[in-house]
Amino acid sequence: MKKVVVIGGMAAGCKAATRLKRLKPEYSITIIEKKPFVSFGTCGMPFYASGDVEDFMALATTPWDMVRDEHFFKNVKDIQVLTNTEVTKINHKDKIVFTVNCQTNDEKLIEYDYLVLATGAKPVKPSFPYTESEKILDFHNPLNAKKFKELAQTGKIGSVAIIGGGFIGVELAEAMVSLWGIETYLIELTDRLLPQTLNKEISDLLVKTLRNEDINVYLETAVESIVVDDSGDNKVLLNNGDSIITDLVFICTGVEPNTDLAKMIDVNTEKSGGIQVDEQLRTNIADVWAAGDCIEIKNLITGNLSFCPLGSLANREGKVVAESIAGLATDFKGAVGTNSVKVFGFIVASAGLNENSLKTCEMDYSCVWGTFYDRPDYMPDSKILFGKLIYEKKTLRLLGLQIAGRGEVTRYIDVFSVFASKHGTVNDLIEFEHAYTPTHSSPMSPLNLLGAMAVSQELDGIICANPNELDNFDGTLLDVREQSEILSFKCEGNVIETSIANYRNIIKDMDKTMSLLVVCQKGPRAYEAARYCKHLGFEKVKYLGGGIQLAKQMLDRAE
Amino acid sequence: MKKVVVIGGMAAGCKAATRLKRLKPEYSITIIEKKPFVSFGTCGMPFYASGDVEDFMALATTPWDMVRDEHFFKNVKDIQVLTNTEVTKINHKDKIVFTVNCQTNDEKLIEYDYLVLATGAKPVKPSFPYTESEKILDFHNPLNAKKFKELAQTGKIGSVAIIGGGFIGVELAEAMVSLWGIETYLIELTDRLLPQTLNKEISDLLVKTLRNEDINVYLETAVESIVVDDSGDNKVLLNNGDSIITDLVFICTGVEPNTDLAKMIDVNTEKSGGIQVDEQLRTNIADVWAAGDCIEIKNLITGNLSFCPLGSLANREGKVVAESIAGLATDFKGAVGTNSVKVFGFIVASAGLNENSLKTCEMDYSCVWGTFYDRPDYMPDSKILFGKLIYEKKTLRLLGLQIAGRGEVTRYIDVFSVFASKHGTVNDLIEFEHAYTPTHSSPMSPLNLLGAMAVSQELDGIICANPNELDNFDGTLLDVREQSEILSFKCEGNVIETSIANYRNIIKDMDKTMSLLVVCQKGPRAYEAARYCKHLGFEKVKYLGGGIQLAKQMLDRAE
Repeated sequence: MKKVVVIGGMAAGCKAATRLKRLKPEYSITIIEKKPFVSFGTCGMPFYASGDVEDFMALATTPWDMVRDEHFFKNVKDIQVLTNTEVTKINHKDKIVFTVNCQTNDEKLIEYDYLVLATGAKPVKPSFPYTESEKILDFHNPLNAKKFKELAQTGKIGSVAIIGGGFIGVELAEAMVSLWGIETYLIELTDRLLPQTLNKEISDLLVKTLRNEDINVYLETAVESIVVDDSGDNKVLLNNGDSIITDLVFICTGVEPNTDLAKMIDVNTEKSGGIQVDEQLRTNIADVWAAGDCIEIKNLITGNLSFCPLGSLANREGKVVAESIAGLATDFKGAVGTNSVKVFGFIVASAGLNENSLKTCEMDYSCVWGTFYDRPDYMPDSKILFGKLIYEKKTLRLLGLQIAGRGEVTRYIDVFSVFASKHGTVNDLIEFEHAYTPTHSSPMSPLNLLGAMAVSQELDGIICANPNELDNFDGTLLDVREQSEILSFKCEGNVIETSIANYRNIIKDMDKTMSLLVVCQKGPRAYEAARYCKHLGFEKVKYLGGGIQLAKQMLDRAE
Repeated sequence: MKKVVVIGGMAAGCKAATRLKRLKPEYSITIIEKKPFVSFGTCGMPFYASGDVEDFMALATTPWDMVRDEHFFKNVKDIQVLTNTEVTKINHKDKIVFTVNCQTNDEKLIEYDYLVLATGAKPVKPSFPYTESEKILDFHNPLNAKKFKELAQTGKIGSVAIIGGGFIGVELAEAMVSLWGIETYLIELTDRLLPQTLNKEISDLLVKTLRNEDINVYLETAVESIVVDDSGDNKVLLNNGDSIITDLVFICTGVEPNTDLAKMIDVNTEKSGGIQVDEQLRTNIADVWAAGDCIEIKNLITGNLSFCPLGSLANREGKVVAESIAGLATDFKGAVGTNSVKVFGFIVASAGLNENSLKTCEMDYSCVWGTFYDRPDYMPDSKILFGKLIYEKKTLRLLGLQIAGRGEVTRYIDVFSVFASKHGTVNDLIEFEHAYTPTHSSPMSPLNLLGAMAVSQELDGIICANPNELDNFDGTLLDVREQSEILSFKCEGNVIETSIANYRNIIKDMDKTMSLLVVCQKGPRAYEAARYCKHLGFEKVKYLGGGIQLAKQMLDRAE
């Protein structure tokens, strides 16, 4: 009978333990967790904070209303769980884990044959100084979510500053506003929200969504320090000289792999900090596996290792660890980093690389941008989707997709995820067969269209311009929209206003060497006209990707 | 300058013409259409009938409010459109199309270099006799949708019989009830709705949805005849001896390829009726292409030809025809028949083969069934999804998926569509990386779980039982649900009621040769317990796929 110790009782650790128990019921398995609970749905914390999820322990409860605590694991899963228990030392030579109970200070040695490190991630220490305070919290520890909610329920929180515009920061911003009506400041160092995954023009859509809900979004803003003043308020000093005084501050400046224990037994880590594992998620130390947010995994597009702390991957990794320990053929090949977030009904999703991450890869890439209805425009509930596709120029290989809107977003990011993970090209997007019916799809899906735009750009030279070029294009704009559309938004600068029915007459006598940017409302008319201009011999012509509709989102934001 | 004639002005024809014009602006292109309109969104007709779409011509209008009529095609697209024009003859030797204007009877010859047949589909003539009447309509002709709506608006339609429970019949049933409150009878010959794509147990979910909305669904019921009685009402005589008297009858008994013109010039058709084309959608006759509902395409799973009349495919086929005529490298490889429908908020989607279609293929397949939350169960708006996965036993190749529910359905059918079209296996489902966030996903997606269930079934012998076995299993049921769950639905027959925490104590002394069906609410607990039973040495054990929750839908229906 083999003894297995799993350090860390969240997604990866619990999955590894339960799956292994199913495969090897005779194994004795122990999960050790420092926190007072295990198998806790930490991804649900923002929704507990917002009030959508009422009960804290709902995040650790089965669908049949059983709390996943020590008793549950013992009685239902036949797995021993030690909560409130910290591992102080590992002796890998003799295969012993040394633990201490944080409440009783009782020390205990546990022997193992196989060890699983599922120690997760920990918050990155911010670079600015701040006073330790009950009102300056990270949102990594679930107990802080609880602390916030208790405070919010007393009505004592009128204002909150959230430092860091990543996923947690953005979700938390919604949580503050939606039920509690808290004055919220979201402060981000870079020029965009979700800076790891989005480019600025798509992030701008999200910024606009948050600002429409009266969230104060500060971009390109560094925090210099946080000081607790005499009345107990937090004063957040910004590098622009401003300061914000709030009742509470959340520090959401990201997480990093928690590898303190791994290093204790000379487990190799990557430069960037995560535990090094092979495709069976074995570490370099015999009989030691690792899974979840403490490891680095292969990015299936670049082949490079990356830190990808997502609960979905943690679950799949836990499964692979269990199968590997049980001696089954299994592997975890890597990921393309597919992700999404939904705030105030607006979904932003991405997969693969973005222009920022590409700059470090030395790949020759191109982009196309599009604005689409998610179902036929005649359907009363059709929604606008915005998409940006990035592909490798030479091979047409798919590199990244960013897609946003209030409608059918998730299906297209999921499909892109599949193609990208299989080294697909833009032709795969063109051939993608989606489930079409007017209640939830257009006959041509956004992926079909983005793929066709990419092929037109590379093979036919019909160039798609970044939506932000509307603002700074130094040639002539050819606006092919109808008068009624132009009335609702007039382009500025050197503009020829015509229409899709009339532009041929206008351009036929124009100087073919002039630089033209064709614009319309969403893109297709401008694409068609740009193609015709090229046919007539215009040398420098492109069309505005996503049309006025996408560019306007960004201009509005700037206003 | 080449002359191109396109016969048929709906999705495939218009797409071929407009795409070709963009590629070859110098070509002269003519679209000939018998109806008074072109580029009409026929898939939107049920939503026009229901009142969701108010204006008939909205189905032929651009997003910038321009009706896609002859003038639009001339001025905007530089394409000639002849509506109300029938092709009476084709002389392919001299490349001449003979036409007659249905309103003026003017005859006209049109020469071509390239011909595109996009003649679509036509309603299948029903096998039962009926009187020709203004109140017995097909729903293929858009003008019949208009006719219905005019009648409905006068309040003169109190009851409708819809004959045929395919996609149109089902969508139409919703349309009758949702706004108009019409007493509706839906009569289907087979034992299920959407008989081409669904198996009975998944169709049952749809039947229940419709019956909950007071639609009278008759299954396994043939119409013997329709007689118009003296008061002008329709009397629909059924083979069970009943008759239904309604104000209006819609005959929705399916469509078949419209190949009358194709046959005139010896274009080859398939046994099943559609035009035979190669991967560039060329017919056997030089310079004649075909696209849309008049052709047969390759089923990418079986390699066999099939008739797949979907607007999404028609668009993609039109594009390929244009590219082929323009001399570009292009192809249309085929389809897996991905489809979906949404009625009363309930989505049913499928792709690939079902058990009925498989019976004609001689493939050795297995199935698994599952019930899932589409997002974590702690999220207040998580929805139940039901799924049935079919795969080839020997190779684990994906053969079909049927999935239904009120939540995130479309993404999973789209992803399955991609894997199936690339000859993927159940392992691809396990490795599928979806966009996880609690607002719209669970950490493990239904596809991850269905894939894992299939592998457990094939490699470990953990057998998933069809939900309808709950009703007719002749061994012992082992119910591992909690008492509170059992109270809400008690299994009948030879049942051992225990719980997931206690079943180990119960089974350890039981006779290992007995036949066991383990059941729980959704499936996972029963799966786990079945696996443990097998470990203990039980020889005949399986678990109820999708749990009581799926089986109950079907039982409720029968009540």
